[in-house]
Amino acid sequence: MSTYSARISRAREVMDRLGIDLLYLAPGANAQYLSGWRRNRPHFGNVNYPGGWIQGLFVGLTRGPVLAVPRMVADFDLEPDTNLDVRALPDQGDPTAFLDGVLREFEPRLGAIAIENRAWSEQALALRQVRPDAEVRLASEVLGPLRMIKAPAELDLLERAAAIVDQTMTDIVSFLDPDSGQTELDVAYEIDRLMMRAGADGSSFVTNVWQMGPGELRPLAMKASRRPLARGNSLSFDFGATFAGYCYDFGRSVHLGNPPDEYRRVHALVMRAAQIGIEALQDGQHTAEEVDALARQVVVDGGYGEWFRHRLGHGIGLDVHEPPYLDRGDRSLLQRGMCFTVEPSIFIPGRFGARTEDVVVVGGAEGGRVLTHYRRDLQVVP
Amino acid sequence: MSTYSARISRAREVMDRLGIDLLYLAPGANAQYLSGWRRNRPHFGNVNYPGGWIQGLFVGLTRGPVLAVPRMVADFDLEPDTNLDVRALPDQGDPTAFLDGVLREFEPRLGAIAIENRAWSEQALALRQVRPDAEVRLASEVLGPLRMIKAPAELDLLERAAAIVDQTMTDIVSFLDPDSGQTELDVAYEIDRLMMRAGADGSSFVTNVWQMGPGELRPLAMKASRRPLARGNSLSFDFGATFAGYCYDFGRSVHLGNPPDEYRRVHALVMRAAQIGIEALQDGQHTAEEVDALARQVVVDGGYGEWFRHRLGHGIGLDVHEPPYLDRGDRSLLQRGMCFTVEPSIFIPGRFGARTEDVVVVGGAEGGRVLTHYRRDLQVVP
Repeated sequence: MSTYSARISRAREVMDRLGIDLLYLAPGANAQYLSGWRRNRPHFGNVNYPGGWIQGLFVGLTRGPVLAVPRMVADFDLEPDTNLDVRALPDQGDPTAFLDGVLREFEPRLGAIAIENRAWSEQALALRQVRPDAEVRLASEVLGPLRMIKAPAELDLLERAAAIVDQTMTDIVSFLDPDSGQTELDVAYEIDRLMMRAGADGSSFVTNVWQMGPGELRPLAMKASRRPLARGNSLSFDFGATFAGYCYDFGRSVHLGNPPDEYRRVHALVMRAAQIGIEALQDGQHTAEEVDALARQVVVDGGYGEWFRHRLGHGIGLDVHEPPYLDRGDRSLLQRGMCFTVEPSIFIPGRFGARTEDVVVVGGAEGGRVLTHYRRDLQVVP
Repeated sequence: MSTYSARISRAREVMDRLGIDLLYLAPGANAQYLSGWRRNRPHFGNVNYPGGWIQGLFVGLTRGPVLAVPRMVADFDLEPDTNLDVRALPDQGDPTAFLDGVLREFEPRLGAIAIENRAWSEQALALRQVRPDAEVRLASEVLGPLRMIKAPAELDLLERAAAIVDQTMTDIVSFLDPDSGQTELDVAYEIDRLMMRAGADGSSFVTNVWQMGPGELRPLAMKASRRPLARGNSLSFDFGATFAGYCYDFGRSVHLGNPPDEYRRVHALVMRAAQIGIEALQDGQHTAEEVDALARQVVVDGGYGEWFRHRLGHGIGLDVHEPPYLDRGDRSLLQRGMCFTVEPSIFIPGRFGARTEDVVVVGGAEGGRVLTHYRRDLQVVP
């Protein structure tokens, strides 16, 4: 049985248990998980094809999967190795009639349909129009729990992404040159180029590189800008490669020129908090929120709690952020095979910023296994 | 009255006429059009914040706009010059209760709510949960017609994007070197870097650069790959810069090494079709589908009709593809200030491809005004 057939079988068991008769998945991680239908990199400006809002993967309890896509996608975009039962949307005519036709293939029983959480509202409204009596639910009910635990083959793909990130970070630190007029955006684009050269599909999210330092004018805009690199600033990184759809998420901070002693202490404190978080990622020992609390306490005890202003981390896999979350309020018990970012930070506007981030797989009594191997001591760019 | 106040007034007139009491816009072009709330570049792997699926801009008939965003976005992401009435989503607790509270600000009358077409289904379902009696409609009803006609200030921004594209195309043709091992993806990344250096916010869509030639192994995969440039192939470009949220969309084909005579003829035929399309973009003279037919006839008469397999063009502005469409079935009458791509092509798998694309503003009897000035004769890369 192929990977995808096995996943569909497990999804059908959950559907059956929850009383869901059909999954209707717009393009995205859930559809890729069940069928191998690869997502494209998303566009800034939306792209529209006739009836495009109907496209998706239909998985019934016994029938399907059926993939409905715009004709242009069917003709030009599908991976040649996608072995799916494809319906091309009509270029003309009423797309809702087409949707109705596809749904009829799954009759007679369509009491409850679970739709992709991020499917366009236009899709949800069309579904309600053609099946006004069906209960519409969310696909995350079925797929969220399945996707939380990563199989060894999934971890292999995350490790491929991690190796690309390790290489890229090594190369980018050599590339930094505060005397050359390089801007934050120049560094960000070079990271994207390096990741692609090293074999990535692309970036998991918008690559971010930003300085913080004394006297800065935009203390809260922690986003790559056209500001040139300047000694006296900390420089923080947030980026990740995707490999075969799996997303990495990575971070470090370096210092441009000699840092003040306080920066050395703060950087070490962030690294200690990360270490505590990583060690706590043990099968069955803690809830997600407890790990957040353990690592946060290190920063609080060091006197910088008010500057660690976000959750410790998030689940990661086919999406950059996916459940569970290492965050107050998430009481999921950790299980072997879950993957999390561990990413404490201390950012003090107008002064400096220090962060670190790796993807960590929940392990046994030895704690989590970190997938990136990049060094974690403070690096000073002369 | 500011640009945004004026647009909101016009939107309210339409809402009133259509019986819509509230616009509820997820992040996107419609929300940017009405408020200046800038979209971010989208992520490959989804990013999730607590209750993030509720975020959006609320515009009532007399109240608002109110902007609800995750706390992390409110703290770190909003442009400092955004002068909006902001509500930060709670990090904990029930997001639907929060949504209910925001909606109460717009009571008593919420009979019909128009939601962003591409808002997540999760948002549409939450809305139905907290206001089960409200009619849910689509925001495109209100905003589609308003956005079709571009104001002079919008055209200025598109011209800024066009200038970036002209410069980038000039630079990238000098960059091409079939002896260097450059791949299609190398060229695509260099285009992205050049656009950013020239002042773009980023790319409007995923930059595409691809070869077609005799004996190719993947005749239908017209997507940038790791294949090195090779003489004997045509090389086609499809890319665009965004500037202040406005999207450009541009294309040309060049030939690597000396082209066969047939390629010269085909390239000229595509350019002639484009010219006919551009000249037909006259205020009040044609419908959108008629312009498609006029340009298509040139390719058909030349004997290559079966290889021009997509619509002639699409409206463009804050989105890459937006109505109207230069396509069979779109009977919109052209009006001054509408902007379209004109993009005929002839792609013959296993042989070659030729395309051209510019953004053109509908004009008077003289025809459309082309915003890019890049040369349109055949360029041969030696």
